[in-house]
Amino acid sequence: MAKPKVFEKPTGVKDYLPHAVAKLRRIERDVLACMQRWGYEQIMTPTIEYYDTVGVASTTSDQKLFKLLNQRGTTIVLRSDLTAPIARVVGSLLKEKPFPLRLSNHGNVFRAFEEKGGLEAEFFQTGAELVGDASPEADAEVIALAIASLQAAGVPSFKIAIGHVGFLNGLFEETLPGRASEQEALKECLLQRDHVGYRDILKKLSLDDSLRQELEGVLRLRGGQEVCDQAQLLSGNASAKDALNHLCAIWDVLTAYGVQENVLIDLTMIGDFSYYTGMTFEGYASQLGFPVCSGGRYDNLLAQFGRPAPATGFALKTTRIMEVVEDVAEEAKRTLIVYAPSHRAEALAEATKRRAAGHIVVTESDVEGWKNERLSTAAFQSSGFEYRGTTFHEAVELWDRKEGQA
Amino acid sequence: MAKPKVFEKPTGVKDYLPHAVAKLRRIERDVLACMQRWGYEQIMTPTIEYYDTVGVASTTSDQKLFKLLNQRGTTIVLRSDLTAPIARVVGSLLKEKPFPLRLSNHGNVFRAFEEKGGLEAEFFQTGAELVGDASPEADAEVIALAIASLQAAGVPSFKIAIGHVGFLNGLFEETLPGRASEQEALKECLLQRDHVGYRDILKKLSLDDSLRQELEGVLRLRGGQEVCDQAQLLSGNASAKDALNHLCAIWDVLTAYGVQENVLIDLTMIGDFSYYTGMTFEGYASQLGFPVCSGGRYDNLLAQFGRPAPATGFALKTTRIMEVVEDVAEEAKRTLIVYAPSHRAEALAEATKRRAAGHIVVTESDVEGWKNERLSTAAFQSSGFEYRGTTFHEAVELWDRKEGQA
Repeated sequence: MAKPKVFEKPTGVKDYLPHAVAKLRRIERDVLACMQRWGYEQIMTPTIEYYDTVGVASTTSDQKLFKLLNQRGTTIVLRSDLTAPIARVVGSLLKEKPFPLRLSNHGNVFRAFEEKGGLEAEFFQTGAELVGDASPEADAEVIALAIASLQAAGVPSFKIAIGHVGFLNGLFEETLPGRASEQEALKECLLQRDHVGYRDILKKLSLDDSLRQELEGVLRLRGGQEVCDQAQLLSGNASAKDALNHLCAIWDVLTAYGVQENVLIDLTMIGDFSYYTGMTFEGYASQLGFPVCSGGRYDNLLAQFGRPAPATGFALKTTRIMEVVEDVAEEAKRTLIVYAPSHRAEALAEATKRRAAGHIVVTESDVEGWKNERLSTAAFQSSGFEYRGTTFHEAVELWDRKEGQA
Repeated sequence: MAKPKVFEKPTGVKDYLPHAVAKLRRIERDVLACMQRWGYEQIMTPTIEYYDTVGVASTTSDQKLFKLLNQRGTTIVLRSDLTAPIARVVGSLLKEKPFPLRLSNHGNVFRAFEEKGGLEAEFFQTGAELVGDASPEADAEVIALAIASLQAAGVPSFKIAIGHVGFLNGLFEETLPGRASEQEALKECLLQRDHVGYRDILKKLSLDDSLRQELEGVLRLRGGQEVCDQAQLLSGNASAKDALNHLCAIWDVLTAYGVQENVLIDLTMIGDFSYYTGMTFEGYASQLGFPVCSGGRYDNLLAQFGRPAPATGFALKTTRIMEVVEDVAEEAKRTLIVYAPSHRAEALAEATKRRAAGHIVVTESDVEGWKNERLSTAAFQSSGFEYRGTTFHEAVELWDRKEGQA
């Protein structure tokens, strides 16, 4: 194995230069402030967790977990999501705190090195979890908060698609009882949004025509509340009916929030069936082919941390959101103060005064070449000038007491 | 190896509950804003780096580096400091950008699992680096910025002790030429602040009295600018003299900054001699036995990343600073809105309006037991009340249109 070159960093991780940092941190700040206004209090959890606790409880598939061994031979993971650590905290440090709990969490999460496809090994998420409330009201609250968070982030146009794991489970169990592999194959097609493949599988199955039409009808179950009514006709299965009733109740609350424009029901949507237990949702920005947020109800997770409780929540894909939001507006006024050694105290006092007023001030002592390097007073008249790779709006010379001002 | 219990996390890492998060993030925000006003632009670097590049270039000793292997068998480290990654970025992404560069970086850093002593495996630092300027002016700037940053963080009382690796190196080379192991032993005592041990070693060495007195005199070299004058008398060695001249020049600039009250010269201070090449400093808060910041000049680091350049900087020990600063002032007004289903739209609209005004609002639908659980109107008259473990300042009931207000 050749040594890495000095400037190299591991595959799949990024450096963020000041421009990108300003954007990322603006999103982080505004989203966390939004969550706080909804009563979600931020907690922070470690980068490393035990594989056997938080690792296995996460939604991340085993081969994508970033694993390492500690000195005692215990397997550690770099956290792969922000929900499982919150569940651990709810079951330990917060175990005396009564439900419902509203918590937020912002941080970097990890995937095992992806050597191909340019997938990221480390990226940022901002999550919110509502623990201890099983009602449709709670599900609607986290969806409405996801919408408010995407708006706070500055995502210009997006839709939240809402599904329910109980509907497809119930429908397939009713129409294809005991045929687990066929059910799996159909679900896999829906997960990949491969509608052609889905229809192909249906054709190959020995189903009577009405049943095939019923299962093909699933593909049309995307839209507003009318979808719930259509779906009620498709399945008589009790768990499918329960799922639809719960979704309809969520829709009612979302209507009360006044966010119908941002949501649609999509009963073909598949989440992680081993993790989610009810409503699931994904947010899509109009310019992006991948989700900018995802979430759902996970009523079985908390039991793994010794405090069984219903829970619902979501995570914004903060790193991805950077691609669709505006850059940060111009920063504060930036001033360069250049001084001769004889004017040092005066120059540094001036810098202190301007910094206290919120300006950005860089000071430079009389350096060899400044006289030649410096821009003409004419250039100071413009709105900004470059000096050694950095843009300033104003220059102050404390030299022979002459000032050049922008 | 027994499986970890469900609520356990790896040794040496922490969860931060909302109260602590508010404090940590307040410090982070105010310190980064201070650095920004001094023209230091924030960059962010990955959590993982190659061992052979950033790992070996860091100040952290090899056995304290948190190492892991990637899938190709290359050794990776969890970053142990924020300076080596900045040097990598300066030598790669920023390699066309002219000097001087002023950069800041906030993040978590890691140490290999410390099984004893309660040492932390993950903690936060906030750093600033001034790259491409070898002048005493640059050293003074980062010291003055460290002082401004500690003030921005809210550290109530602290002192910065400034030393120089060149002074002790020069003095020992002059007085104990070629006696490397004795030099090391004396330095080790100074590092441990073990003055008794330092004197013991001197006694055991076969030195003439004047030389021993000279080396004992080192222990008294703590104070203001007068220390430079005293030290000039101790050593005729050229590199020791250069170091003292540089320190005196730094002191002059610090005087111009008006921060003499916060600094002292301490020529007995030892940094990492393999890393620092000039001035070094440490900040001590009056209530704490360990430094709240440390830094210095490291003119050899950038060459390891293909862009040789002088550089100076520091890192605040952000996690430790939490122990000496005030808690965050009371958060925004917190309101609980409880509503009957018939008043849902009205309640949620009221919540939206109040959140837009910057209030924190939690909504609760008519839940079983609320009537019994709820506090009397009398309680609402007080400045705050507990509801399900959370304190509110005000309650609004949208029930039978009666409102109870704090």
